[in-house]
Amino acid sequence: MFIFSSAFFFSVLLRQKVFRSNRVMSTNSAVLLESRPSPNMVAENFRIGTVAEPTGPVPAGSVLAELVAVSVDPYMRGRMNDTKGYFVGPFEIGKPLSGGVILRILESGGEGGSLKVGDMVQGFASYQMRQVLPVAGLKKVPSSASSGFPEHYYLGVLGLTGLSAYIPLLEIGKPVAGETLFVSGAAGAVGSVVGQVGKILGLKVYGAAGSDDKVRWLVEDLKFDGAFNYKTTTTQAFLASSVPGGVDIYFDNVGGETLDQTLGHMKLNGRIIGCGSISQYDTPERDRYGVKNLFYIVTKRLKFEGFIISDLLSKYPDAVTQLATWVKEGSLKSRETIYNGLEKVPEAFLGLFVGANTGKAVILV
Amino acid sequence: MFIFSSAFFFSVLLRQKVFRSNRVMSTNSAVLLESRPSPNMVAENFRIGTVAEPTGPVPAGSVLAELVAVSVDPYMRGRMNDTKGYFVGPFEIGKPLSGGVILRILESGGEGGSLKVGDMVQGFASYQMRQVLPVAGLKKVPSSASSGFPEHYYLGVLGLTGLSAYIPLLEIGKPVAGETLFVSGAAGAVGSVVGQVGKILGLKVYGAAGSDDKVRWLVEDLKFDGAFNYKTTTTQAFLASSVPGGVDIYFDNVGGETLDQTLGHMKLNGRIIGCGSISQYDTPERDRYGVKNLFYIVTKRLKFEGFIISDLLSKYPDAVTQLATWVKEGSLKSRETIYNGLEKVPEAFLGLFVGANTGKAVILV
Repeated sequence: MFIFSSAFFFSVLLRQKVFRSNRVMSTNSAVLLESRPSPNMVAENFRIGTVAEPTGPVPAGSVLAELVAVSVDPYMRGRMNDTKGYFVGPFEIGKPLSGGVILRILESGGEGGSLKVGDMVQGFASYQMRQVLPVAGLKKVPSSASSGFPEHYYLGVLGLTGLSAYIPLLEIGKPVAGETLFVSGAAGAVGSVVGQVGKILGLKVYGAAGSDDKVRWLVEDLKFDGAFNYKTTTTQAFLASSVPGGVDIYFDNVGGETLDQTLGHMKLNGRIIGCGSISQYDTPERDRYGVKNLFYIVTKRLKFEGFIISDLLSKYPDAVTQLATWVKEGSLKSRETIYNGLEKVPEAFLGLFVGANTGKAVILV
Repeated sequence: MFIFSSAFFFSVLLRQKVFRSNRVMSTNSAVLLESRPSPNMVAENFRIGTVAEPTGPVPAGSVLAELVAVSVDPYMRGRMNDTKGYFVGPFEIGKPLSGGVILRILESGGEGGSLKVGDMVQGFASYQMRQVLPVAGLKKVPSSASSGFPEHYYLGVLGLTGLSAYIPLLEIGKPVAGETLFVSGAAGAVGSVVGQVGKILGLKVYGAAGSDDKVRWLVEDLKFDGAFNYKTTTTQAFLASSVPGGVDIYFDNVGGETLDQTLGHMKLNGRIIGCGSISQYDTPERDRYGVKNLFYIVTKRLKFEGFIISDLLSKYPDAVTQLATWVKEGSLKSRETIYNGLEKVPEAFLGLFVGANTGKAVILV
């Protein structure tokens, strides 16, 4: 009985899998959390392995989907610790990472679902090749044939990255043409969009980046008014010499010493947009940088406000429309550091913390 | 010729003085800056001395006025350094301090001036007994006979102190009844008003103060929901045990370690009102406390905003009316630590930094 039914179900499963992707898939590759950082993150904290293939019929309101592209983002570092933090819980040891992805629909559950086989969608999902997901969490993206953009732009300039740059710059920064914007992590995924949007809005834009090549790219290609390599020049020295009038808006991707020194160069009534603190995420508590210049928040009447882009959902549609228009016009450039293969996720992710990537790091699967 | 004219002018001067105050005044006492702190402030940085009596006729649009009461406020510490800071320049060595005062009008320049002899006014002025001041910078305060309040309330609960509590609590804090407010320096001039207004607005109110007596006063007299002595209990320990749900609004008078530990106990979308950093004002740069928990501004979507009350001028009249109503009703209590005599200004001022005063420190002259 047991043998019979096992064999029966196995044959059903196998037929389903064949049906679903038109090929036999013996393994469902995944990027797994092998261990937690102690204290610093290393390649050995990750493992490329397999998870069970999704089985059984796809429920109504769900889809079977396969990964097309995977995002790596700094906030994921927090999820590697065994602590409640941020807006989602920690990754589990032995389980796949998860985050922003582009997926292709392999099978749609139920009749008349809104997503059809072959559709490309963006969403949050496990970093495993195939999985069943509720339709409610997925959003269809235009095919590259129809939009002229690669679908993975919806992980970057037209995805949470671009939104994390554009919406807070407007909502918290409240920029006025002619004002001065300083952005740290300026050659990164978010920072490079912040700076370009700043230029489009008529701001003077200055940036900090981690190599001379990145600095050249910011100034020559993205038309920043100035930029510096923070590994060879201090923020304090750059701002004192190149931005003597001070900073109206600081878009902070890094926290720590850069934030501390920028506080001393903010103008009265300046705004600091707290997007991230990448300099501190992989730093154990005892070694964290202590910011000493916070009294400037009082004396200069500054506003320092953090955000999580998922809180600003209602503003996504208009923002994506605006960003896509700028990309089509050529006034907003997307740059990606592309990795090929799911097994490159750890390398791409670790690269975020050592400045290995320029623009958005994307893993094409 | 020289002797004659000197004697002549001296006799004129003397008559003017006699006329102005109905008594002969041989000296114009003042609180002078003797030297700058290096690095810490000490009593020897001040000197009680004299300055020239105001001479000549009082110009139209000005008044001759004498000090009635003098305020000491933490921001004045910044003015003792030889650096541009805050909203006014540094005090000058050998010259009087200046700040918030209550004055009595001795003589009004020109016909039909808006201020009459004997009127009581509030304003910013030098800490010298008599001086000529433009009417434009002065505001008449009700006599104690008409209001039922001592005039020096207009240095405290009904002056910049009360306004610095009330206006930012509403404008930056945006309190909603039932939310939790934590205030540091809670037994101080601003903090004690913040906490009481919080209770009136239906908040749960917790405070940090520097002695067991102050803590008792906050809880027993001002009806705080809880308070602790920061010299014997850490902010972290108090908030973890007594405010487990977290803090919606933190009114920060002290900066430093208290701010750092409070960041860890803020609720999502919490607001931090940056009023002051008294723990850091008298601390040389190398010894300043480094705040390590700023990443919570991002992860908890906090807003940390500083203010200078003089920026919020348009909101004064309504705010004073509201505060005076509460004081009359008895729902808002004023407490002062009173010093008698202009020569007590240094002691009262130094007392701000060692927690010697409860409520508002006022010097009655």
